[in-house]
Amino acid sequence: MRERDLIARIRSHNAALDGVPGLDVPVPPGDDMALVRFGDGHVLVAADQVIEGRHFLRDTPMDLVARKAIARNVSDVAAMAAVPRATVATAALPRGMVDQDVEALADGLRRWAAHWGCPMVGGDVGVHAGDGPLVVSVSILAQPGPTGRVITRAGAAAGDLLCVTGALGGSLAPDGRGRHLTFEPRVGPALALAAELGDRLHAMIDVSDGLARDAGHLAAAAGRAVEVDPSRVPCTHGTGWQGALADGEDHDLAFACAGPPPAAVGGVPVTVVGRFVAHAPGAPLVVAIDGARRIPADDAGWEHRT
Amino acid sequence: MRERDLIARIRSHNAALDGVPGLDVPVPPGDDMALVRFGDGHVLVAADQVIEGRHFLRDTPMDLVARKAIARNVSDVAAMAAVPRATVATAALPRGMVDQDVEALADGLRRWAAHWGCPMVGGDVGVHAGDGPLVVSVSILAQPGPTGRVITRAGAAAGDLLCVTGALGGSLAPDGRGRHLTFEPRVGPALALAAELGDRLHAMIDVSDGLARDAGHLAAAAGRAVEVDPSRVPCTHGTGWQGALADGEDHDLAFACAGPPPAAVGGVPVTVVGRFVAHAPGAPLVVAIDGARRIPADDAGWEHRT
Repeated sequence: MRERDLIARIRSHNAALDGVPGLDVPVPPGDDMALVRFGDGHVLVAADQVIEGRHFLRDTPMDLVARKAIARNVSDVAAMAAVPRATVATAALPRGMVDQDVEALADGLRRWAAHWGCPMVGGDVGVHAGDGPLVVSVSILAQPGPTGRVITRAGAAAGDLLCVTGALGGSLAPDGRGRHLTFEPRVGPALALAAELGDRLHAMIDVSDGLARDAGHLAAAAGRAVEVDPSRVPCTHGTGWQGALADGEDHDLAFACAGPPPAAVGGVPVTVVGRFVAHAPGAPLVVAIDGARRIPADDAGWEHRT
Repeated sequence: MRERDLIARIRSHNAALDGVPGLDVPVPPGDDMALVRFGDGHVLVAADQVIEGRHFLRDTPMDLVARKAIARNVSDVAAMAAVPRATVATAALPRGMVDQDVEALADGLRRWAAHWGCPMVGGDVGVHAGDGPLVVSVSILAQPGPTGRVITRAGAAAGDLLCVTGALGGSLAPDGRGRHLTFEPRVGPALALAAELGDRLHAMIDVSDGLARDAGHLAAAAGRAVEVDPSRVPCTHGTGWQGALADGEDHDLAFACAGPPPAAVGGVPVTVVGRFVAHAPGAPLVVAIDGARRIPADDAGWEHRT
């Protein structure tokens, strides 16, 4: 089974929480975070991991491994326009990992978690019995922002504009380095968008799977389709629009809003790259508009078909 | 560095949260769970993992792997006399893991989490790039029980009795099976103890590192010492008192109470096995009383010295 299919299957199973007595989850699994009622308030929670060989290479400095493990989670908080509050982490360490690296990892996790306002309050560390790569798993708790509103993936209306913050593509450099290790989670811009746009902000996601796919997530969650104009997609230096649409691990924001967005939020530019439309049964969720051509762009690898 | 030293170093670092602005953590890292203020309420949070080869063998049925991953976390909730509310999980899968096992793991995690009242509301799954063992990391959210009081590791007074629920030792069978895969987290008994004993319940922990070590954690957290009578320690069938004191992964409760405990809570027997005393500087934290002999029993392996 392909990993993507696997994840989709597990996620779809996870969404079936209806039968759980007493559970109050206003935002269920499948979004960037789940929202769980606690007493009179709400807690947002999510978990994400980094695996050596998949999310970072063996020679990556431990401080950057720690940074990415925390930042991926903080980016999920940004996607909900929420405020990071606390983290916990577990690490499965390679047997031969030197003390200096272990300390650097632990220090890095603590420091980056505190940096983004979600101090590490607990966790566990274990050492592999045989050969095994470093696996760092982080869970994050967050609370709704000052508006009290949590922005989910669902809610795009036909006519809404698809917008992105920053620039996309080329996050994962061929040598394993690149922006995926150093991106800045967009917590501040997300809170600013929620405040400035108010009810005009309909849905949001962080771009982790590539814009085409993540725009498709927004479309699917709302029962709409989305048309993307590749020529308008802001590309990072050296990246073509194919990369900007298909590359993952950007961790900028994609959002649906009614009417024009601000030109920038929190110092980060905002660009309109498409719009949501009604979805006809059987039609693609994501269509790239290339001059007169309409190119179905659902799912990964669509760029290989153009 | 030995794993235990490593964990101790990381935990001690984690306890240094004083410098984090705006953080309100009435129970900081180092206890079974951290307590974090959220709005008007509190959330308890912890994380724990199971690593193939360390916490289960490769041929362990996936349902039992999932059970243990969840149960270890639920046991941390029991140790605080709290109520499990929600879980999130990440899994790093071996490349060759067959679909059936992946489904069984995902189903098991969902089912056991719901079974103990803490449905799985989110998570992430990834596949190792090369060889790599299964690593399942679970984080759990809990809320204080009906008494509103959270029972920490600290608080044992000189004269308090050291008590345990159930029976100890031999949880990890030589063939990899055993009670460590099937133990019942003591959430109900812990809540019953908090309700019945009230302010007489001074401190609690779940026995995961072996009674000698975990009693030492209670003693250290309170600045006391503890005397254990090995002849009174309830042993599982086939286990001697050395095993009952030194074996880990029992996940029964050890607690400090003023005056006699109930004979049983929630159908689980309670046994008085020792008492807390004043701690003289330089003296051992844990002493086993063997007739007229006083045997220092701090830390692992003390049984090899008898």
